[in-house]
Amino acid sequence: MTFLYKADPVRGAEWAQLFAQKAPELPFQIWPHDGDGASVRYLAAWTPPDDIAERFPKLEILFSVGAGIDQFDMSTLPPALPVVRMTEPGIAAGMVQYVTHAVLGLHRDSRVYARQQRDQVWRAHRVRPASACRVGVLGLGMLGRAVLQQLHGLGFPCAGWSRSAHQMDGIDCYSGSAGLRAFLARTDVLVCLVPLTEETRGLLCRDLFAQLPRGAALINVGRGGHLVEDDLLAALNDGQLSAAVLDVCEVEPLPPGHPFWTHPDIVLTPHIASMTQPDGAVDAVLENLRRYREGLPLLGLIDRQRGY
Amino acid sequence: MTFLYKADPVRGAEWAQLFAQKAPELPFQIWPHDGDGASVRYLAAWTPPDDIAERFPKLEILFSVGAGIDQFDMSTLPPALPVVRMTEPGIAAGMVQYVTHAVLGLHRDSRVYARQQRDQVWRAHRVRPASACRVGVLGLGMLGRAVLQQLHGLGFPCAGWSRSAHQMDGIDCYSGSAGLRAFLARTDVLVCLVPLTEETRGLLCRDLFAQLPRGAALINVGRGGHLVEDDLLAALNDGQLSAAVLDVCEVEPLPPGHPFWTHPDIVLTPHIASMTQPDGAVDAVLENLRRYREGLPLLGLIDRQRGY
Repeated sequence: MTFLYKADPVRGAEWAQLFAQKAPELPFQIWPHDGDGASVRYLAAWTPPDDIAERFPKLEILFSVGAGIDQFDMSTLPPALPVVRMTEPGIAAGMVQYVTHAVLGLHRDSRVYARQQRDQVWRAHRVRPASACRVGVLGLGMLGRAVLQQLHGLGFPCAGWSRSAHQMDGIDCYSGSAGLRAFLARTDVLVCLVPLTEETRGLLCRDLFAQLPRGAALINVGRGGHLVEDDLLAALNDGQLSAAVLDVCEVEPLPPGHPFWTHPDIVLTPHIASMTQPDGAVDAVLENLRRYREGLPLLGLIDRQRGY
Repeated sequence: MTFLYKADPVRGAEWAQLFAQKAPELPFQIWPHDGDGASVRYLAAWTPPDDIAERFPKLEILFSVGAGIDQFDMSTLPPALPVVRMTEPGIAAGMVQYVTHAVLGLHRDSRVYARQQRDQVWRAHRVRPASACRVGVLGLGMLGRAVLQQLHGLGFPCAGWSRSAHQMDGIDCYSGSAGLRAFLARTDVLVCLVPLTEETRGLLCRDLFAQLPRGAALINVGRGGHLVEDDLLAALNDGQLSAAVLDVCEVEPLPPGHPFWTHPDIVLTPHIASMTQPDGAVDAVLENLRRYREGLPLLGLIDRQRGY
């Protein structure tokens, strides 16, 4: 019985140490796997091998090492195999830091001041109160809720949107396609944190941008597939959007020469908004293995129908 | 009886509107004053006129429009004139935003990623948990306490230092010259928020930097006079400090050609960390006028001996 890990090997070495301490009875291996594939019962992966079903015929659980599972090709997975996303708290903490930094940077004109420093210009611009900057988060899962709570605490008027109805203290919650228009109309800074599914692919497009107030800003910390890249460039260039902070792209790494690299109104980071922290991840995985042995429902289990 | 305003005229026009609404019985004027100087009983100023005593012989209260009063030349002021600093809540809110953005930017490598974007390099660096970044705030006044509360909520291990002993939930409070060494030794990001007095002038110097862990970062949102500029450049260049975020300088506007403009490890903004918001400021001033009429102690009254 082996637990196999197939993702960033540096963090994998930390997983190995943590498994040795916390679950010494469970053999832990880092990809590539040598030996009998039938011994692999648990796999934690960013992307599983394409021949997963043949290679690991006795696999019992597939863990994603990331918060999403859109990087999995579901058609290659045995239909009954439980698929679990990562729910460790470090992911939410990292996301809160990144989005808070991005919102404050937009609100406090950090690109303007960076340009002024480059040009040796000392010119103050009026500080607007947080109440003048309405933030809206698409997606009210663990990450969206954590981000909203933090931004609410900083005094930004906050709203969230999700497919189904939610309730949060101090946050205006909108839902469904009916609620989307009103949500967008009151949002100056839009944060994308929905899962990537067939429904949400291409959600951040010209039609959606047109429903935001003129000059709104976008923060995409979901997936590159949420965004229609040409529509973003058009919206920035005609002033419908004033700025975008992008941590994800349709093709990663973003190819050299792509217009996002040099656009003056785009801040780009290489998919680092949040990273799974090994200690939290191993705790989350071991907790789910305990629940599995005891017949309890797994935490973060994917609904294949819904897609997340 | 006139209330005279002598500071940024754009915000002065908003003060005028607010006074007209909230205290229509009190004549409000924006500098320059025309008419009998003896009619001026209250002055709100960033810098008062040098001949304040002769020009306004019946002045009863001098209000600073800023959180500090170090820009006042106390020797020109009548010894018994009450001097009041600005305590409106918008100042603390702006400071919390600025420092939170600066700390998150340092913690999340925002300068590294800005350089990578410029060079079209897609390379992720490990996200360290907030627990690995110990923040220390010099100064436990209204602003220092507000900043610490916010950063504590984001999970950064936080400490504060002040002249006299303080207590704050979740924050390690150090005090006095005896406490300074231990405070500095545990601080990875140092935030300066003490008032500028003869005691604190030049506090941020080579000796102090040497007591921080190697590679620490500095955020100066106090006054330019706190910092020995050449010592900062030396500490950055020899690696004792890794970065500085400066909102204030010894000479403002910072002269063209000053090495701070172009240093790769300095982020510079033109004294905009926080700005007095007219609505909060007028409320604070009117509240103090009410207290004055009723013989109650003024809020934010300066202790001339102490210097703040």
